[in-house]
Amino acid sequence: MEQAMISSKRNEQIRDAKQLQQKKYRDQRGIFLLEGVRLVEEALATPYVETVFFTSRLTDTPRGMELVRRASEANIPSFHCSEPVFGELTDTVHSQGVVAVARKPTWPLVCAGVMLIADGIQDPGNMGTLLRTGVAAGCSGLLVIEGSVDLYNPKVLRSSMGAIFSLPHWLLQRDEALELLKANKTAIVIADLIDSDNYWDVRYPQDMAVVIGNEAHGVHPCFRAVADLKVQIPLVGMVESLNASVAAGVLLYEILRQHRLENI
Amino acid sequence: MEQAMISSKRNEQIRDAKQLQQKKYRDQRGIFLLEGVRLVEEALATPYVETVFFTSRLTDTPRGMELVRRASEANIPSFHCSEPVFGELTDTVHSQGVVAVARKPTWPLVCAGVMLIADGIQDPGNMGTLLRTGVAAGCSGLLVIEGSVDLYNPKVLRSSMGAIFSLPHWLLQRDEALELLKANKTAIVIADLIDSDNYWDVRYPQDMAVVIGNEAHGVHPCFRAVADLKVQIPLVGMVESLNASVAAGVLLYEILRQHRLENI
Repeated sequence: MEQAMISSKRNEQIRDAKQLQQKKYRDQRGIFLLEGVRLVEEALATPYVETVFFTSRLTDTPRGMELVRRASEANIPSFHCSEPVFGELTDTVHSQGVVAVARKPTWPLVCAGVMLIADGIQDPGNMGTLLRTGVAAGCSGLLVIEGSVDLYNPKVLRSSMGAIFSLPHWLLQRDEALELLKANKTAIVIADLIDSDNYWDVRYPQDMAVVIGNEAHGVHPCFRAVADLKVQIPLVGMVESLNASVAAGVLLYEILRQHRLENI
Repeated sequence: MEQAMISSKRNEQIRDAKQLQQKKYRDQRGIFLLEGVRLVEEALATPYVETVFFTSRLTDTPRGMELVRRASEANIPSFHCSEPVFGELTDTVHSQGVVAVARKPTWPLVCAGVMLIADGIQDPGNMGTLLRTGVAAGCSGLLVIEGSVDLYNPKVLRSSMGAIFSLPHWLLQRDEALELLKANKTAIVIADLIDSDNYWDVRYPQDMAVVIGNEAHGVHPCFRAVADLKVQIPLVGMVESLNASVAAGVLLYEILRQHRLENI
């Protein structure tokens, strides 16, 4: 379904898509922008892609041609854009010439296995890396507490490496999350330097929620108050803390290690 | 040693400092720029700070006043700048009104304990987080292979959280690093998905060098060819790899865990 080239920035499709650079419109419309060959390819493996915009830079490569062919095969409208028009949709300097509009994926809310909770993560790179790490370590889902950076922010998507489609996630108020965990009797695990055990000395249950707090302020008192396990990652050298997504990785992989050893 | 306010962008001190935004001049002159209250405070605990530039935004806070007092006590020239002049030295939007010029720290070259090797890390955030993680996990030093992002890049410094002063590091050519490791009989550990053991099943020696490769291409063939231990971090979900600094964290903390358990 390739159409004629779009060469006007006032084209309605372009203006509609450009809106999605703002969280407000992503929230209102339930759709978002994905940029880059890799991310769009991963998205095309899901049922969520609605539209593809590209330039000759994409179709100059065999991989790009294949991407356009796949979109066409799936009856996804694809628009060839002039460079200046495409520039309206991208904020990257070295763009690969492809952007897609996709619906936000949704899942039925479940709370089992190892769940991640992102409570107040502000840095888009950290949030994206957290998604990617959660998928890698076999987490079953991510609860995002309102006030965290938007999962559909372009920088989050870039560092998530496609994990946005594979890690089930839900946006909740903090008290909704607490109720959900209580209703499911899910053990709450937090990383904390006070009154806590070394993280490798703790035995982790099969079902639990690991809370990753705000980069500057740590875990919110509401989670601290109800935590079942408080663990700390030892800091050997002169540094105040670990990066939030590194701490998540260290913790989630120790949990995976223990679970795997128990199941041998 | 507070001086009169600098209100001209053509001031020689300002022009000299501004040069340091470019790697070329940092390399030539062996000095670099540090920005933000936290980083400059940490730098003032070292003997490396040469000059401090600040605005009223800094001295409007008690913490900022204390910082200027400490610089003065240490006989470090401090220059009060007008906002437009200070703007020449910063690339951050919400600046805290303080920048310092510091000498690059140096250490005698040693190769013992757990060493990190950054070989071709390109993303400044990853490199900074790697430094921070290396300090946290008790690494004894970092070998940076030429061609990696500059350690003194402002974005590296920002994510390193002051670790630049506490983790001894050296810039080497790849063959120099290989020779050093050979001369010291240091075991080389790489993360690799091919022909490798699960990272938690491996027993790590006391002295070793852990190679963290390029984000897109992984570990360089030169290191792969001489690796003593090839380990893999299992990827449970649909994701191609972990972020480089998360992978480093997972690996370094497993090494720390094993070393600590052996020493009980």
